[in-house]
Amino acid sequence: MLIVMERHASAEDVQRVISVVGEMGYEARPIPGHQRVAVGVVGNDGRLDAARLLGIPKVLEVIHVSQPYKQVSREWREEPTVVALPNGVEIGGTGVVVMAGPCAVESAEQILATAERVRAAGASVLRGGAFKPRSSPYTFQGLGEEGLELLALARERTGLAIVTEALDVETLPLVARVADIVQIGARNMQNYSLLKEAGRSSKPVLLKRGMAATIHDLLLSAEYILKEGNPSVILCERGVRSFDTQTRNLLDLTAVPVVHKLSHLPIIADPSHGTGVRDKVRPMARAAVAAGADGLLIEVHVRPEEALSDGAQSLDPGEFERLMEEVDSIARAMGRHVAAPAGAALGGSGV
Amino acid sequence: MLIVMERHASAEDVQRVISVVGEMGYEARPIPGHQRVAVGVVGNDGRLDAARLLGIPKVLEVIHVSQPYKQVSREWREEPTVVALPNGVEIGGTGVVVMAGPCAVESAEQILATAERVRAAGASVLRGGAFKPRSSPYTFQGLGEEGLELLALARERTGLAIVTEALDVETLPLVARVADIVQIGARNMQNYSLLKEAGRSSKPVLLKRGMAATIHDLLLSAEYILKEGNPSVILCERGVRSFDTQTRNLLDLTAVPVVHKLSHLPIIADPSHGTGVRDKVRPMARAAVAAGADGLLIEVHVRPEEALSDGAQSLDPGEFERLMEEVDSIARAMGRHVAAPAGAALGGSGV
Amino acid sequence: MLIVMERHASAEDVQRVISVVGEMGYEARPIPGHQRVAVGVVGNDGRLDAARLLGIPKVLEVIHVSQPYKQVSREWREEPTVVALPNGVEIGGTGVVVMAGPCAVESAEQILATAERVRAAGASVLRGGAFKPRSSPYTFQGLGEEGLELLALARERTGLAIVTEALDVETLPLVARVADIVQIGARNMQNYSLLKEAGRSSKPVLLKRGMAATIHDLLLSAEYILKEGNPSVILCERGVRSFDTQTRNLLDLTAVPVVHKLSHLPIIADPSHGTGVRDKVRPMARAAVAAGADGLLIEVHVRPEEALSDGAQSLDPGEFERLMEEVDSIARAMGRHVAAPAGAALGGSGV
Amino acid sequence: MLIVMERHASAEDVQRVISVVGEMGYEARPIPGHQRVAVGVVGNDGRLDAARLLGIPKVLEVIHVSQPYKQVSREWREEPTVVALPNGVEIGGTGVVVMAGPCAVESAEQILATAERVRAAGASVLRGGAFKPRSSPYTFQGLGEEGLELLALARERTGLAIVTEALDVETLPLVARVADIVQIGARNMQNYSLLKEAGRSSKPVLLKRGMAATIHDLLLSAEYILKEGNPSVILCERGVRSFDTQTRNLLDLTAVPVVHKLSHLPIIADPSHGTGVRDKVRPMARAAVAAGADGLLIEVHVRPEEALSDGAQSLDPGEFERLMEEVDSIARAMGRHVAAPAGAALGGSGV
Repeated sequence: MLIVMERHASAEDVQRVISVVGEMGYEARPIPGHQRVAVGVVGNDGRLDAARLLGIPKVLEVIHVSQPYKQVSREWREEPTVVALPNGVEIGGTGVVVMAGPCAVESAEQILATAERVRAAGASVLRGGAFKPRSSPYTFQGLGEEGLELLALARERTGLAIVTEALDVETLPLVARVADIVQIGARNMQNYSLLKEAGRSSKPVLLKRGMAATIHDLLLSAEYILKEGNPSVILCERGVRSFDTQTRNLLDLTAVPVVHKLSHLPIIADPSHGTGVRDKVRPMARAAVAAGADGLLIEVHVRPEEALSDGAQSLDPGEFERLMEEVDSIARAMGRHVAAPAGAALGGSGV
Repeated sequence: MLIVMERHASAEDVQRVISVVGEMGYEARPIPGHQRVAVGVVGNDGRLDAARLLGIPKVLEVIHVSQPYKQVSREWREEPTVVALPNGVEIGGTGVVVMAGPCAVESAEQILATAERVRAAGASVLRGGAFKPRSSPYTFQGLGEEGLELLALARERTGLAIVTEALDVETLPLVARVADIVQIGARNMQNYSLLKEAGRSSKPVLLKRGMAATIHDLLLSAEYILKEGNPSVILCERGVRSFDTQTRNLLDLTAVPVVHKLSHLPIIADPSHGTGVRDKVRPMARAAVAAGADGLLIEVHVRPEEALSDGAQSLDPGEFERLMEEVDSIARAMGRHVAAPAGAALGGSGV
Repeated sequence: MLIVMERHASAEDVQRVISVVGEMGYEARPIPGHQRVAVGVVGNDGRLDAARLLGIPKVLEVIHVSQPYKQVSREWREEPTVVALPNGVEIGGTGVVVMAGPCAVESAEQILATAERVRAAGASVLRGGAFKPRSSPYTFQGLGEEGLELLALARERTGLAIVTEALDVETLPLVARVADIVQIGARNMQNYSLLKEAGRSSKPVLLKRGMAATIHDLLLSAEYILKEGNPSVILCERGVRSFDTQTRNLLDLTAVPVVHKLSHLPIIADPSHGTGVRDKVRPMARAAVAAGADGLLIEVHVRPEEALSDGAQSLDPGEFERLMEEVDSIARAMGRHVAAPAGAALGGSGV
Repeated sequence: MLIVMERHASAEDVQRVISVVGEMGYEARPIPGHQRVAVGVVGNDGRLDAARLLGIPKVLEVIHVSQPYKQVSREWREEPTVVALPNGVEIGGTGVVVMAGPCAVESAEQILATAERVRAAGASVLRGGAFKPRSSPYTFQGLGEEGLELLALARERTGLAIVTEALDVETLPLVARVADIVQIGARNMQNYSLLKEAGRSSKPVLLKRGMAATIHDLLLSAEYILKEGNPSVILCERGVRSFDTQTRNLLDLTAVPVVHKLSHLPIIADPSHGTGVRDKVRPMARAAVAAGADGLLIEVHVRPEEALSDGAQSLDPGEFERLMEEVDSIARAMGRHVAAPAGAALGGSGV
């Protein structure tokens, strides 16, 4: 940490900073400069809170040199985290894991038909919301527990693993009982109570980046989960807010190599929410894999025009098949491949 | 609602849209244009979900003409909502309500001393966090219940009303028992479980705008609270994410007249978080009042350089006194004034 | 300047950095840390280019401690720059200077009528575009030289000073011959050829902030003008790009105190472009003055509904009169006042 | 175009709008709604200016249904524009064109050595700035005419085509005399005088997206060039401003399929400026090609650590070779390939 003093700071001002740093248990080292003095802090283990230092008179700026997170960092753990699912699929290895399904579970017929189709096309995880966070209180909020049961049924029928969202501390145990991966959505990325509860769960967590979250913010939120004892976190880039209304969000694919450099955690991309427009999903799915993503989250609906939510960005099964072919080509050009469930080589679509 | 078709849409494509609109219980009215056809939807009461329409082939865009929210809108209720506090102060009337205090409650000595000083300077509400949402799990998270008790003690001593944050559904009842206003922070603005719980509380709610939330998003979140039966919502502009790192956030003061036009709810501004820099708090507090804000939320600490959180943006009591004088001048130039608690005219600072 | 090394940088990596810094003519000072080594650069006069350092292997980050600009900074010149206009009005002093008029000069009748009205209401500078930068090549591009002549005529009739935009190096001399202040628009803020040409002009320059320019970018662009010998630069905040479409731009009023701290140059605000919505202009004009702005730029049209450009944000003369009354009240609450031209006390509206 | 009225608009208010639309030469068609009335405009050919309509009392919003640009749109020309270069390379066809070279031309030795290396690795166009736009007036501004001569020499030696930037109307003819492609940089994207001059040139134009430009803004700027008679425009995504400082800009790769849908013009990506960080260039180059980009613009320097500008994002020749191998694999997975100059199959690296 480097504390930069204002230009007209006096020797006493600098001395006051040195004293406070000392009181906080660290060593201060003044660095005289041409325009202004700076004070280096030695011994900071990443937990030092800058705010107190910024409050000292004549302090202009506090610059973080150490990273504010620990367990999620590449420096804490060199080798990549690989999250293994019950159906034998691994996230964070050489396989590219495709999670697909409808935005929301709507009926037995809808989720089972969609599950069959995405399974046949090569997906290994089924997505589908039972509890839905919606901007408006007047739109469809999901089937709740019934939706969870339908997901379990679809898993039984297809061998797909299940990822579904938990909205709050109350329903997280319910969700975790059924899900193979518990999703925490973008709107809840800094819901710390929920993060801590997920950290106490034994299920892997899919943590989506908030709409205006920096990569640092995202990693700090993941740190909440690891700190509570759950090491199995999968990060997800799903687009950030932008000034251009051509797409719903701005998919920031550079987040993929940025996360891979800073952290050992796997990261996947969600081009469905990341663009919000059906015909942009395929090109951006390809691009995500080319950027090095460990997986994809894709909205697929057997009849997109009847979807109760997010129909505009859902692919129909035919479009999804084309996507899978293209994604597999790109993955192979990278020396990777689309991951398949353990029994996948044996059976057909229905298993 | 207006459904815009792609340029090459055929008569059948348009007919399909008309049918779906009919199935959804609304009337469709095609509007032929020079470049393309559009279909107007008549009878939409604001609850129609655009996603299903966007999923129909050859639909280019769905444009909302009606607003997606109801009870929070000016069209629902013409006259402004005025939130009355137990100490006689009203938010949303002609008085400008100043809420001031430390970022976090740290000790009895700190909160009582700060309360006395802000009371003496003319504040009518004491702010102070007992439960703190922090980006990093390694920084100070607040005193919890002990913090709430200290706030109650400060209220008893000074007559100030209390505003403090609730982080989750579990602790909201605890917070609501003590607080006169329950705060929902920017990071929880779309935590719908928390919003609903706050909607079932009898205490007024201070809802802060999320870091990348549009005004529509903010009003929709408020709608969640009103829909559950709690009409006493105070909105708060606290800065949005920006590309310039000169300030912590970009305080969007135009939000004040925008909200006043669209909604009957009062809106206050938080120039402390909105700028994150001490010497920007006073000018932006003045600007907020000049823009028409119904109140201010200001961080004040008796010794900012010792603050456990956000010291960089906290004023010391002397600076706060100057702010109050300036804000009062601006308020009077607008035909308003700084609101005072019921007994304020009688007593002095210590009450 | 501080050069932060990657965690696994070796002693040789650090030595290489020290050598390069030495070759560049500065002194390097290594600062060992708990997690990583940093290297401080002593003697940097603000012109050192970071890119070369960032290219060295194992360099993680280069942090600027010195400012990259010189002549525009408060540290270069302590007292504020005051720009005096021929009609006796000063920008950057205690007076708040109001510049008002139509977006574009459209006809003699329009510009003269508008000039009379804004003069009567208390403005001291007339704005009006003769050369208009327009996003689309198919919209009205201004009257050109004829527009300049009409502005000169309006000045003769009313005593108002003239501010109008120069679009390129070719037409700048033409504009500078007539204008009392040459405006450089947001789209040209980093048109360095134009900035240099303006720096060689003897007329004051109104430099508008670009749509995604940081305050540093704005000050660096002003530095181009000062470096060429023209000290009379007035900065202008006119809103930045944002994700919310409620307003055309996001007016960043915190830019006012930020600029006042970093620079001696005056700064005004343009709430017309800054909001793009007529009924937001008055509140944001008040807020700008309360934030400390040295002036305002306001679009006024005698018949806004007939304006050839930007009618949506233009005030009619009656609305402008109300704005002037409110702004004057706010200015007086701040110990300032609305500046008037030299002869203003004598004559009436027609002069 | 759809004109949405305020809720409380009267029949006279609506009638006034209908009259104005009629005066402007279009037909107005009122659409009564549940909450409010809207007025459709029939016959708009894309040139109708919304501002005048927004200025009419009780008009809430004007919604564009037609696109504001013409010649650049897919609807104007169905088949893709292919730009042919003198060395036989085509941009916009099935080949992926790689343009590579240093940020700035620094010396004969540097540009010739770099040109040989990028040619050997498979590039077909040499980039290199002779005139450099720099934020600070105190940094290296390019070699000017001497730089142009060195580029011509490098072309002679290697057969590479040349792309280099023109900064203003004065130097554009100079640049166009030497360059095979004239680049207009992000800062000049809305410098309309320069766009018009480029439109009168016979050389293809590489138009880079501005830092906060929407795709509509970019297409409108291209329209300026086509309208003057130059059909050979290549668009370039180079990152937009963002709130996260992990990368210099946020590379918006979704712009690639968005442009391909709206326009017939080719679009390439610049991952060097788009990320600003060397180790992010390769993954984002791969991602750009997977998203469908027609080419890449890559900074390569024989000795990045000695580069006078942008060394932080320049690849060394070895890294560039790896990039070319990876990009070619991705292109082949897409049924494309890296484009080679006409004589490339015959000779070796030195030609």
